[in-house]
Amino acid sequence: MENKRSVFFISDSTAITAHTLGKSLLAQFENIPFDEFILPFVNNVERARQAVGNINKEAKKNSARPIVFCTLIDQSVRDIIMTSNGAVFNFFDTFISRLESELRKESTHAVGRYHEGVSDNYDVRIDAVNFAVNNDDGATTKGFEKADIILIGVSRTGKTPTCIFLGLQFGLYAANYPITEDDLVGMSQEYSLPSVLQPFRKKLFGLTINPERLQKIRFARRPNRPYSTYEQCAKEVSMTENMFNQENIPYLNVATISVEEIAATLIRSGKLKRRF
Amino acid sequence: MENKRSVFFISDSTAITAHTLGKSLLAQFENIPFDEFILPFVNNVERARQAVGNINKEAKKNSARPIVFCTLIDQSVRDIIMTSNGAVFNFFDTFISRLESELRKESTHAVGRYHEGVSDNYDVRIDAVNFAVNNDDGATTKGFEKADIILIGVSRTGKTPTCIFLGLQFGLYAANYPITEDDLVGMSQEYSLPSVLQPFRKKLFGLTINPERLQKIRFARRPNRPYSTYEQCAKEVSMTENMFNQENIPYLNVATISVEEIAATLIRSGKLKRRF
Repeated sequence: MENKRSVFFISDSTAITAHTLGKSLLAQFENIPFDEFILPFVNNVERARQAVGNINKEAKKNSARPIVFCTLIDQSVRDIIMTSNGAVFNFFDTFISRLESELRKESTHAVGRYHEGVSDNYDVRIDAVNFAVNNDDGATTKGFEKADIILIGVSRTGKTPTCIFLGLQFGLYAANYPITEDDLVGMSQEYSLPSVLQPFRKKLFGLTINPERLQKIRFARRPNRPYSTYEQCAKEVSMTENMFNQENIPYLNVATISVEEIAATLIRSGKLKRRF
Repeated sequence: MENKRSVFFISDSTAITAHTLGKSLLAQFENIPFDEFILPFVNNVERARQAVGNINKEAKKNSARPIVFCTLIDQSVRDIIMTSNGAVFNFFDTFISRLESELRKESTHAVGRYHEGVSDNYDVRIDAVNFAVNNDDGATTKGFEKADIILIGVSRTGKTPTCIFLGLQFGLYAANYPITEDDLVGMSQEYSLPSVLQPFRKKLFGLTINPERLQKIRFARRPNRPYSTYEQCAKEVSMTENMFNQENIPYLNVATISVEEIAATLIRSGKLKRRF
């Protein structure tokens, strides 16, 4: 292992973009332990000076100078950060002048013009998140008419967080309905779609998962219950996939992919259209 | 208005980072109508060629060449995108070589090393989102012991989406409790904390909002109800802020800030510590 490196993520807003992009760059370097400092809302000269104080303190402590990632638009704030003893990487500087010549136009250098994660459609996003919460877990099917998509699958396949993410990120209205053993047994030999879902067939999308992974997730939550045995997981998964196949419901195995990737895959597949 | 410009956001993963950063750069240019194309999962040569096809089609249609923002690590994919007739801005290229010399180390150029938005703490994030959904709107106070923070405020101040965002982004366990008129009247002259919240005083944080804005939000949801009159909104807000002041509950006016900014402010204030 090498010496620890301090890394700062600085933004005039929430610092989410600076952090995400900075982390993805650092992930390309192995075996270096990074010590992270996230400084959001560095939007005036005073806060910029405080930030420089923090950077210089770290620079003194360690042999290697701190790395500083920032997304700063205000020139006066940026100029102050540049005086620090860190190696400053400003995501804006680098691109804005090339963009200016490409677009044959000067940039406005206006702070807060684009709030990170905030669009004109802010109220829609919030409404869509509330929709996901209110139409979670099959407690009610009242919202199914309004839903852009209805995710179905056995318990603990990531339906809830995926629905919420679709609302927060894309303003999409996503409901979900958990498939239980009761939904599937006692029918005919061939598993069929629960009747409550029949009218919404076109909006349905299935999530499935490997029984091994499902068992781990369930066990972490409720150990030592029939619910979290391998046998039960395997049975539910197999019955549900069987039903998806019988009923021609498109589905996706989520065992190794994240909520963000599930959402992007749904959109890419044409099953869903981004609202913005 | 000038001619329309096509803009592509291309990534080997979800394209969320490319999109966010690209949009914040474009926001610095006024009066140019941008036509957006988001292409996630461009992670092999075939998909890269398809993307080039899309870019070149747009290049033919418009007089100005398309702008292409990308976060691509794989050299072979990148090389293909570079052959397109667009103006390519690759967020990785630009920084990785400077980082290499700063860290005196070669980068691994490994794709998928850092999933956008996904960390080692993925299961914690998902658990925290589920926690937020299950401890929403005061339906139960069972989770309050486990909560890192409990947001309180009148209906429609953004408690639910903020709780969910804290879970999804930072793995924090956030519950919320809605303050209603019934919680506050019939007590003494001075409004005091609802008794159910008393044991959790240290975890409480208030959200408030201007009555005008609150009325708009409520009206959009349920028009022509006492709930969405200005008088009712003003009354609830005033009673609640009164209570926050009496009881020394820290609070924040969310009228003009986003969920992301509320979350970052809570962390910045020291009220909350990021879990990762």
